[in-house]
Amino acid sequence: MGYSDVDKLAVNTIRVLAADATFKSNSGHPGAPMGMAPVAHVLYNKIMNYNPKNSSWLNRDRFVLSNGHACMLQYTLLHLAGYKISMDDIKAFRTIDSITPGHPEAHDTDGIEVTTGPLGQGFSNAVGLAIAQHHAAGEFNKPGFALINNYTYTFLGDGCMMEGIASEAASLAGHLQLGNLIAIYDDNHISIDGDTNCAFTEDVVMRFKSYGWHVEIVEDGDHDLEGIEAAIKKCQAVKDKPSMIKLRTIIGFGSKQQGTHGVHGSPLKADDIKQLKVKFGMDPEKSFVVPQEVYDLYAQHGAEGAAMEKEWEQLLSKYAESYQSEAADLKRRLSGQLPEGWEKSLPVYSPADPAVASRKLSEIVLQKIHDVIPELVGGSADLTGSNLTRWKEAVDFQPPATGLGDWSGRYIRYGVREHAMGAIMNGLAAYGTVIPYGGTFLNFVSYAAGAVRLSALSHVRVIWVATHDSIGLGEDGPTHQPIETLAHFRALPNCMVWRPADGNETSAAYYVALTSKETPSILALSRQNLPHLENSTIANAMKGGYVVHDVEKADITLVSTGSEVGICVDAVKYLKDNHNLAARVVSIPCFEVFDAQSKEYRLSVLPDGAPSLSVEVMSTMGWERYTHEQFGLNRFGASGPYKDVYKKFEFTPEGISKRAVATVDFWKDVPNIRSPLNRAFQQVS
Amino acid sequence: MGYSDVDKLAVNTIRVLAADATFKSNSGHPGAPMGMAPVAHVLYNKIMNYNPKNSSWLNRDRFVLSNGHACMLQYTLLHLAGYKISMDDIKAFRTIDSITPGHPEAHDTDGIEVTTGPLGQGFSNAVGLAIAQHHAAGEFNKPGFALINNYTYTFLGDGCMMEGIASEAASLAGHLQLGNLIAIYDDNHISIDGDTNCAFTEDVVMRFKSYGWHVEIVEDGDHDLEGIEAAIKKCQAVKDKPSMIKLRTIIGFGSKQQGTHGVHGSPLKADDIKQLKVKFGMDPEKSFVVPQEVYDLYAQHGAEGAAMEKEWEQLLSKYAESYQSEAADLKRRLSGQLPEGWEKSLPVYSPADPAVASRKLSEIVLQKIHDVIPELVGGSADLTGSNLTRWKEAVDFQPPATGLGDWSGRYIRYGVREHAMGAIMNGLAAYGTVIPYGGTFLNFVSYAAGAVRLSALSHVRVIWVATHDSIGLGEDGPTHQPIETLAHFRALPNCMVWRPADGNETSAAYYVALTSKETPSILALSRQNLPHLENSTIANAMKGGYVVHDVEKADITLVSTGSEVGICVDAVKYLKDNHNLAARVVSIPCFEVFDAQSKEYRLSVLPDGAPSLSVEVMSTMGWERYTHEQFGLNRFGASGPYKDVYKKFEFTPEGISKRAVATVDFWKDVPNIRSPLNRAFQQVS
Repeated sequence: MGYSDVDKLAVNTIRVLAADATFKSNSGHPGAPMGMAPVAHVLYNKIMNYNPKNSSWLNRDRFVLSNGHACMLQYTLLHLAGYKISMDDIKAFRTIDSITPGHPEAHDTDGIEVTTGPLGQGFSNAVGLAIAQHHAAGEFNKPGFALINNYTYTFLGDGCMMEGIASEAASLAGHLQLGNLIAIYDDNHISIDGDTNCAFTEDVVMRFKSYGWHVEIVEDGDHDLEGIEAAIKKCQAVKDKPSMIKLRTIIGFGSKQQGTHGVHGSPLKADDIKQLKVKFGMDPEKSFVVPQEVYDLYAQHGAEGAAMEKEWEQLLSKYAESYQSEAADLKRRLSGQLPEGWEKSLPVYSPADPAVASRKLSEIVLQKIHDVIPELVGGSADLTGSNLTRWKEAVDFQPPATGLGDWSGRYIRYGVREHAMGAIMNGLAAYGTVIPYGGTFLNFVSYAAGAVRLSALSHVRVIWVATHDSIGLGEDGPTHQPIETLAHFRALPNCMVWRPADGNETSAAYYVALTSKETPSILALSRQNLPHLENSTIANAMKGGYVVHDVEKADITLVSTGSEVGICVDAVKYLKDNHNLAARVVSIPCFEVFDAQSKEYRLSVLPDGAPSLSVEVMSTMGWERYTHEQFGLNRFGASGPYKDVYKKFEFTPEGISKRAVATVDFWKDVPNIRSPLNRAFQQVS
Repeated sequence: MGYSDVDKLAVNTIRVLAADATFKSNSGHPGAPMGMAPVAHVLYNKIMNYNPKNSSWLNRDRFVLSNGHACMLQYTLLHLAGYKISMDDIKAFRTIDSITPGHPEAHDTDGIEVTTGPLGQGFSNAVGLAIAQHHAAGEFNKPGFALINNYTYTFLGDGCMMEGIASEAASLAGHLQLGNLIAIYDDNHISIDGDTNCAFTEDVVMRFKSYGWHVEIVEDGDHDLEGIEAAIKKCQAVKDKPSMIKLRTIIGFGSKQQGTHGVHGSPLKADDIKQLKVKFGMDPEKSFVVPQEVYDLYAQHGAEGAAMEKEWEQLLSKYAESYQSEAADLKRRLSGQLPEGWEKSLPVYSPADPAVASRKLSEIVLQKIHDVIPELVGGSADLTGSNLTRWKEAVDFQPPATGLGDWSGRYIRYGVREHAMGAIMNGLAAYGTVIPYGGTFLNFVSYAAGAVRLSALSHVRVIWVATHDSIGLGEDGPTHQPIETLAHFRALPNCMVWRPADGNETSAAYYVALTSKETPSILALSRQNLPHLENSTIANAMKGGYVVHDVEKADITLVSTGSEVGICVDAVKYLKDNHNLAARVVSIPCFEVFDAQSKEYRLSVLPDGAPSLSVEVMSTMGWERYTHEQFGLNRFGASGPYKDVYKKFEFTPEGISKRAVATVDFWKDVPNIRSPLNRAFQQVS
């Protein structure tokens, strides 16, 4: 230990930069950065191992700012540490197309591990990063080769503490005994509504102990750099529990308004910044100043980190001599590329094969590919037997001491914690050594909407195995039957929603989900059995939409997904026999992927000249983009055996035919019917 | 106390009925009903005050089955207790159009207080019911008139315990010292994935103590009826804390598979049911049997409840003599009708008034109407100063001992707990004496998607004040800027999504939200200032859509909502000056309400003959239903001052005009352009 005046100067420099940047942007949160500057300095300058010149070094310590609104703190530290954030970037805080947006975005900014801001997410991402570290250590470390042993640090405030997602993640982290996870709670007694005593009076220390965490308390987080470091080191020494440090700080430390919510979300006034600089012995007339000795202090730590990485690379080289295949596997995983030829393991079906529920088809895929894609790490939010997410030989990811599994286990028992599962998967994906998937009922992916949104925004490969995808789940009834869910996630940018109709479409969904390195996927899968369709091939379904049944001079095209495609095929015959109408059938298992095809291809699937009718047992919202008319369910479902439910709402060959006849009739006088794919202009993208 | 053989018989009757009904429906969850039969019997037969012949008696004790999958337990108890659930209804469990669906639905079944099943919701509803009780007591009770003093009981299992929403609600309930709330935790060590030791090993007792709860433990929940009753009575005596009873039970008690997850979600086998009946001394050949002495036991308790209600009615009559206006107010509230003439308090604007942000317009509404609608109870998830949800004179709802407010306070500090806020509002609305509204950023209503869905399904009047509704929030950036959110909630049945464009539209949104007794509303409100529009009147906006700017022989109709309507009005001039095109402007502040208007009216707003272009700064999904072309944002936003963000994405008069010109051009060769409102057939509803 031993902290010098330069350390104090560094701390105050960080505080003042946060005040300067939020003042310049006239927006942002100075309070938390000013309060947390001491711990941030200790962490980035004394504790964390990282090489600022290579932010993708595998064994770097991870840092997550769960209170993402305090991002000026993180941008400042990354700047000081030598990452690719210049002083001009700091000055461009919260302006268009800068790399210093209002909340940290992993995809755009060097040194940001995960995208945070929505409260509770970052803390849960950190749990995911820590799981990934334990898992990778379990898989790759060997005697004499502690290849992967980094810590994960996360800052969180009262807001994160109050969010349910953080409770879920904390409970699971305690269960999993994640010894390399250290959370630092900024206990500043202030949230936006004022003193936390108005809404948040629980005993946080007792709560975390109840989850099985180790807890340290630092009383003076504003000055006690030694105490902060000592607490972190104590936490590092606790190997069988995650740790939480309750750090008492004063929000907006140094401001005339320190300790009030006046410094939480609004910039300081000009005169307040001046007195702050005077108080800290700085020139009140200058802004955005970093003393050279502060830069030097960080350059030294950065150099140590670079040396450490070099040493690690040497360790890895030696490791590769003894463990050639493991080393090659690790290297490949970090590239994001799947093993060559893995796709040959995907099951292929023909119409002669017996009908199977797509949740079961998904299980078959997982059973076939888990061996060839060792980075696949699954789980379920306590619905394993319903989601069918676990391959037969799977070992659970559990602390070995429990006797229930191992660190190298590839199946995570998430418990009934959908939101945390989503955020933990984001953390798992961000770590770099695993591809996570997780199961729940489609309806309850909505519980995790906040995390799914961040998967999409931060470009991570995460797969939701979302079974029981419609009224077809039957007896559980309206509380469990999705209506709005597909529309919701289809409207989310950079999110693939798949609703496969049969075996080959399910294989295609997995193929695209697994090979899309920057896009999360939701696979909506049926509880009920589905027949295998003619023309359904992996190659066809990979295009997101294709013709299942074609006919010359079609009177109508039926366009559908999942369990309704087969019923549409049956409706073709009904329409011919009873109405002498010729119908085509199109399956669009994934809008997002279909939209990415050439216009020529898309128009071959949904051509001009005849009207089209979509058929899907949920909200029709969004289908107007592809079809002229829509048959769906814009109301809640019903509880009963699924065939009765389908019949009640007329999703039968007869019911579909009735709407098809009405569609043909309605469009018969329109000359030159234009496919809805023809648009006046391109969307902004 | 003193439990007889008839009590034991009643308990076993409940167990066997659950087995019979799930067997007949070949679906459902027998395990939890069989395990919780003893506590359910104690509660419904010895503890709870209710009159089965009047399930809307205000001062009845409330019961919420948070583990809603165990609903055969609740249906059985309601049947025994004498509510309107017949044995035929029990036999119709989980069949189409029965009143005994797969999870309990408040809207359809007598004696069900709230709709449960999605885990964690019911527990949080119970917190809402308990808040409403304390609040109503604070408002209406007078010396000598303990008019409102009911308890709220809730059952919850491991699943609810793991859900984050329950943590949020429990923390708030502890803070609020809700002494009349008693939660009974079915500690059966089994969830769907098996023994809870695989994912859920926290110390639940310590956790609840950390929230400030009183905790009791009952070790033998399978037999110890006296112990259960004693624990409940101890909890009743604790007046300044909510209570949790950890009740150790064996899931599926009596089954050959008792204590395993085999009895959780699957019916018992025929031979297992037979041995169960033999074990309990019942005829193994008979099903759906209730011994007369069990009916009699419940009839006696029901009669006591009826007498109790009668006594209460007399108390109310006396109360009305001394407190005439309070009694009249209470009676009116329970009818669901607002005070006559309240709407005269709604602010009215003209285009000459200065531009104001719609979040501020919302604050003005609340300021004007809080006096005339005393049942309005607001709050925010720790964004009061941003959501502008608190009228100036508001008193906080807080335990008086805190010195921060009062039980009669009408403003709830929810903390950063959006999901619990949503579910608590459902409970508040279900109680009957308040109309709840709650604020957060629109983007974070998604955190509460599970609760909003249940608001819609259970037909409750709940209002979300959802500010910062678009990229117009500016600097906070993509993590906070909604893109998919409106599409999501517009696709949800029975949910009104309002995005008012100005003052009169904001007043109209409140008018419709407050007078729609069976529909929740989300008011999407701007951070930035908006001008008041010509033709915007409360009467027009109440129709959900109307013509803001009309013109003879229009070349195009611009259709928009919220902050973009004013920009469309500016685009009209731009189009005329630069392209000699005549444009109409239509505002559709609420799809759901517009859809309910006559077709004639809707076609007058969106007529045949000219193309239309929607303009909204978020996902275009759903707009194809109303317009021929769509200008929106199907990607994530950007961080910067809002005018820069609008400019980047071309939501300016010029940018809109560019798309309008393309639209006119694209549609110019189409004869007889049909309004998208014309459809081939009606949707199922």
